[in-house]
Amino acid sequence: MDSASPQGFIFGTASGGFKTPGRRDLALVVSEVPAATAGFFTSNLFKAAPVLAGMERIRERRTGRAILVNTGQANACTGEEGLANCRETLALIASALHLEEGEILPASTGVIGQHLLMDRWRAAVPELIRDLGRSSLKDVAEAIMTTDAFPKYAVERVALSGGEIILAGAAKGAGMICPNMATTLSLVLSDAAAAAGIWRRMLARAVRRTFNRVTVDGDTSTNDTLYGLANGASRVPVRGKAEERLVEEALDRLLGKLAYMLVQDGEGASKVLHIRVRGAAGARDAEKAARTVGHSQLVKTAMYGQDANWGRIVAALGRSGAAFSPAEVRVSLCGVELFRNERPVSPEADALLAKPLQERDLELDIVLGGGPGEYRLLASDLGHEYVDVNAGYRS
Amino acid sequence: MDSASPQGFIFGTASGGFKTPGRRDLALVVSEVPAATAGFFTSNLFKAAPVLAGMERIRERRTGRAILVNTGQANACTGEEGLANCRETLALIASALHLEEGEILPASTGVIGQHLLMDRWRAAVPELIRDLGRSSLKDVAEAIMTTDAFPKYAVERVALSGGEIILAGAAKGAGMICPNMATTLSLVLSDAAAAAGIWRRMLARAVRRTFNRVTVDGDTSTNDTLYGLANGASRVPVRGKAEERLVEEALDRLLGKLAYMLVQDGEGASKVLHIRVRGAAGARDAEKAARTVGHSQLVKTAMYGQDANWGRIVAALGRSGAAFSPAEVRVSLCGVELFRNERPVSPEADALLAKPLQERDLELDIVLGGGPGEYRLLASDLGHEYVDVNAGYRS
Repeated sequence: MDSASPQGFIFGTASGGFKTPGRRDLALVVSEVPAATAGFFTSNLFKAAPVLAGMERIRERRTGRAILVNTGQANACTGEEGLANCRETLALIASALHLEEGEILPASTGVIGQHLLMDRWRAAVPELIRDLGRSSLKDVAEAIMTTDAFPKYAVERVALSGGEIILAGAAKGAGMICPNMATTLSLVLSDAAAAAGIWRRMLARAVRRTFNRVTVDGDTSTNDTLYGLANGASRVPVRGKAEERLVEEALDRLLGKLAYMLVQDGEGASKVLHIRVRGAAGARDAEKAARTVGHSQLVKTAMYGQDANWGRIVAALGRSGAAFSPAEVRVSLCGVELFRNERPVSPEADALLAKPLQERDLELDIVLGGGPGEYRLLASDLGHEYVDVNAGYRS
Repeated sequence: MDSASPQGFIFGTASGGFKTPGRRDLALVVSEVPAATAGFFTSNLFKAAPVLAGMERIRERRTGRAILVNTGQANACTGEEGLANCRETLALIASALHLEEGEILPASTGVIGQHLLMDRWRAAVPELIRDLGRSSLKDVAEAIMTTDAFPKYAVERVALSGGEIILAGAAKGAGMICPNMATTLSLVLSDAAAAAGIWRRMLARAVRRTFNRVTVDGDTSTNDTLYGLANGASRVPVRGKAEERLVEEALDRLLGKLAYMLVQDGEGASKVLHIRVRGAAGARDAEKAARTVGHSQLVKTAMYGQDANWGRIVAALGRSGAAFSPAEVRVSLCGVELFRNERPVSPEADALLAKPLQERDLELDIVLGGGPGEYRLLASDLGHEYVDVNAGYRS
């Protein structure tokens, strides 16, 4: 694991005691100079207070100085009071660091429907400020965890004509312990010198190709947020389309690693299903097919049960709404062709797949026809651990 | 349980030994006179051979004489040979009863991807014919079971100006033992005298209001079929719109009972969630909201865990694609209001719901706003039994 960090960022973590006493549940990322910002938010109509405040900041300013994250309380479904509390936490940091409140981007995750414990915030902020420069990106990745089994962070380096830039990211996974909902929070930091317009465009495409192509249970939370800061501290500019493409490819790799870790660590997940749909009439058909298969409870339980159940895959394709001719469909799992010409290929498939299906990563290749449409999706399986995690009574 | 049967129908059952030796897995319903037919089929692009043959018959003829059902083999994903086998089974019956092959409607359920065992069919048909008139509708309901825990049948009587008519129905539930898929098969019989046009129209509306509003896991099989026969043996006609409405209301009750039994007996289901969405901008928005909640793994596991987890319900509404204003949303579970004005209503809700959530039937009422759109959906929960049933290796 590359422990490099983009230049010009400092990190702080602290314990606010929001849920588990003593655990570091506050993280602060500060850029030494104003950084180009980017923000991507949940499409859920119920948006948490920090999502509403973050959207406003991204809309109104093109640069920012800091990201403030807490776990333990989602500050979702908390109304006007929640929004006022969110603003107060930002004001506390702004005042300590002599920044404007609008330069700080907020994110929260945790129990929904409860108000932020403002007394604990006021007590914890001085500790958080004191810690600035002492924590690492890994500490931040640990502080933003809720029920994640391991911290998720990654680094990419890109050589451009002006020198090397570094991209780093941290994410928290799908913690679905009641009454939390699947919430992903991610930070992407770079010392590249890029205008906000370019930075946002590159990141938007990378998010579409990575984070928007994973599913644990198809539920979208009130709090999903991804922030990006590019502060130019490397003094290396992203020059022209060719270099933009290089950075975008590195963002794809970086976010791809984080997205994979989210599915791998999805609560109750034992498998990562790599679904690839090709030959669809269009990209939209390919996506429909991939998502229907990736969300099918019957396919997910079959993968959990290590069962090469092509019938369920085919049935999910058939109800997906994607337009295709059944006669052209081919399905392969872990490299073994299971279905072609509307029929199972071979009675030996089960024997051939017994061993590959024991692996964590399963490749599912689906060809719908001869069209250009293609889509990839990472999906988790569905087993007893999922039920255990999600049927437990809230505590 | 009303054991009345519509006049002019006789029933036969037999053991073909298709899967479990000795078990009655063949059922035949014969109308003594030509009956108006109706047929409703899976929307899955992969349609089983009996679905293709049944669709053809419903399209080309308005009357029919018999319905032939087998369990143990779905005859799905079996190509041209599967279709030829299906036709041969119909020809065997037609020849024995001096009917035309086209007058018999086929339905199959069971293991997909395997061909019908034609030798066993040929051996079993004489037994099936001999049994005609000896079996009851209940025997038919038992013969078409796969992994259903109990036979599903119901009867309704309707007093019309010309006398009484009887409606009777039998259904098999969502048997999802690998590699079967959720397959529903249903028969609706009546001795009413109704033209095929009216019969089909009445039944179509009743199916839309009942069978199309249940979900166990959101998967649609290759074999879903509902056939209706109205043979006029009561000599009681359905006169005018008012009587049509009476019959349609009885069909709603009949199919409603069968649909409820399907969810109640959904494999691995311990709860029946009665979802009612009101106040949506339109019926389409209400349906989107109801289906997203009913299919949400997080909502289903919470119901299994007897957890009044309004956050998951609200989050599902927010991602459903239904248009609404979050500030107007209200959510009640088992008569206890949980969410209003974008906030939880009361900290006592959990205590109030502890007992009601132990019941099998849970009422979930959702108000999206002040619009006219309304939708009802029955959904099952998701627990360990579902995983056990669906992750087990095929045998």
